[in-house]
Amino acid sequence: MSDFRPPSPEDIRAAANRILGHVQRTPVLTTSRLWQGKPIEIKLENLQSTGSFKLRGAFNSLLSVDVPAAGVVAASGGNHGAAVGFAARALGHPARIFVPEYAGPTKIELVRSTGADLVVVPGTYADALAAAQTHEANTGAMQIHAYDAPMTLAGQGALMLEWEEQGLEADTVLIAVGGGGLIGGAMAWTQGRRKIVAVEPELAPTLHAALSQGHQTVVSVGGIAANALGASRIGRLCYDLAVSQGVTSVLVSDADIAAAQRLLWQELRQFVEPAGATALAALISGAYVLEPGETVAVLVCGANPDPGPFAER
Amino acid sequence: MSDFRPPSPEDIRAAANRILGHVQRTPVLTTSRLWQGKPIEIKLENLQSTGSFKLRGAFNSLLSVDVPAAGVVAASGGNHGAAVGFAARALGHPARIFVPEYAGPTKIELVRSTGADLVVVPGTYADALAAAQTHEANTGAMQIHAYDAPMTLAGQGALMLEWEEQGLEADTVLIAVGGGGLIGGAMAWTQGRRKIVAVEPELAPTLHAALSQGHQTVVSVGGIAANALGASRIGRLCYDLAVSQGVTSVLVSDADIAAAQRLLWQELRQFVEPAGATALAALISGAYVLEPGETVAVLVCGANPDPGPFAER
Repeated sequence: MSDFRPPSPEDIRAAANRILGHVQRTPVLTTSRLWQGKPIEIKLENLQSTGSFKLRGAFNSLLSVDVPAAGVVAASGGNHGAAVGFAARALGHPARIFVPEYAGPTKIELVRSTGADLVVVPGTYADALAAAQTHEANTGAMQIHAYDAPMTLAGQGALMLEWEEQGLEADTVLIAVGGGGLIGGAMAWTQGRRKIVAVEPELAPTLHAALSQGHQTVVSVGGIAANALGASRIGRLCYDLAVSQGVTSVLVSDADIAAAQRLLWQELRQFVEPAGATALAALISGAYVLEPGETVAVLVCGANPDPGPFAER
Repeated sequence: MSDFRPPSPEDIRAAANRILGHVQRTPVLTTSRLWQGKPIEIKLENLQSTGSFKLRGAFNSLLSVDVPAAGVVAASGGNHGAAVGFAARALGHPARIFVPEYAGPTKIELVRSTGADLVVVPGTYADALAAAQTHEANTGAMQIHAYDAPMTLAGQGALMLEWEEQGLEADTVLIAVGGGGLIGGAMAWTQGRRKIVAVEPELAPTLHAALSQGHQTVVSVGGIAANALGASRIGRLCYDLAVSQGVTSVLVSDADIAAAQRLLWQELRQFVEPAGATALAALISGAYVLEPGETVAVLVCGANPDPGPFAER
């Protein structure tokens, strides 16, 4: 798996075994209280250690290679950085994480709490990534990309394997997309056996734009989910999988996302960040319309809201 | 089951079937991140509709009898009132709920949101209960007791049945106790097959005091979990079950409860009220000490923190 190509289902199964015991097996439930009284399957990946699915890819990446003495480096809007910092600490490697200022205090503190060597970079994710690449070049630290790497996709793909082991039945799974690591892993695992739908903020329509204008498309990103879903260009691995499987992307407004966020609290007492509620937003807003009889599952992928519930008020 | 005696396992199975489709089947997980790296089984009853287990007893009560035209009445620190209001609305009955002022704005609003006829009573739970009894006498409305009624215990007992169906393996289950409806149902279901341990706040040691000084013991109650666990006298049904099964109660401080509350957020991104974290507090504080090899499960029973995450800041 040294080539730059999507992981195979066998790669993903190997990843799942590799990260077993390092990541939380997250709970699933079926609820009829979120949308039109219809049963919806939910996976609560917001309960993952560090609060997002990113930990799966981080552990798989670190456990798949010989990490150099200089350790690892990552650029991140927060969740990926926390995941790499957490996994590096658990495995005894140094980690330097570059986080853009716009990640916000909660996520910056989350990265810091992992014990990683944190560098806050003025600007956006692209600025943090440039700083991380400079650090990589200067020190020989291993770069752990936030989404566009085979080992990252294989780790995230293990989530979908786990969900199927837990009895996932839905015809269709809605997944929020930033750079495409999570949905890329899901597509690589399911291989078209199950319909996957990408959900993106209108203000960060990265995959959506690439599917109509080509992989190289760069979008400007913003909105309430930007620090988690704000990749300005879709990952190549995700793009190729989406094209080959005919996966489409639906767009939701920030208002839809905020409404879904409140609904998850109101009905399930799950307090998640905007990105974690984005997939649900596609359903309640009507951005994704089910066919008659079509059943649906929603992945709640992240839970690091800012401010958090114990922030000073 | 018209007599005032604990429900049998058959009664509880009937209750589980009766309330099926009305209550959420809540998720379970096993995590090693809460205490000493040891695997602990958790049931997330905080995801129940209205945010607590009380809904099970409320639906079982309302579905077991002919509700009079005057509807139902309940006194509640918040969670039971919300549950009765929700169940009554779902089944088309009027409901009047008496809530003591000290329940706080979040729980008062929660009761109001169910569409129930809400009356806020100055004082404590005892004052609200007196007002509810007057209303019952004046109108013929059916009183739904918050904990000391066979049908309430049968409904709450269905939670433990469900958990065992979901594969509960632990030797011992830690359960927070207020008036004893939840643990009473659990004891009535398990019949001593599994060790049950009561956990109470030091500032609301109702069962603890009764077990040493007799059922009639009245304690003064306070502290951060008082609006959920602040019954001043233990229910008779719970008391008799605890005595006959040799169940004991361990006490935890408000500081322990607050620490457990933060830990549930930090490690599992579950934002719960103090009562919901009280059972876990017994473990992390050392109030309950495991025997070598003893495995443990923790019930997270309620999730209506004040202020809630979307409160104005």
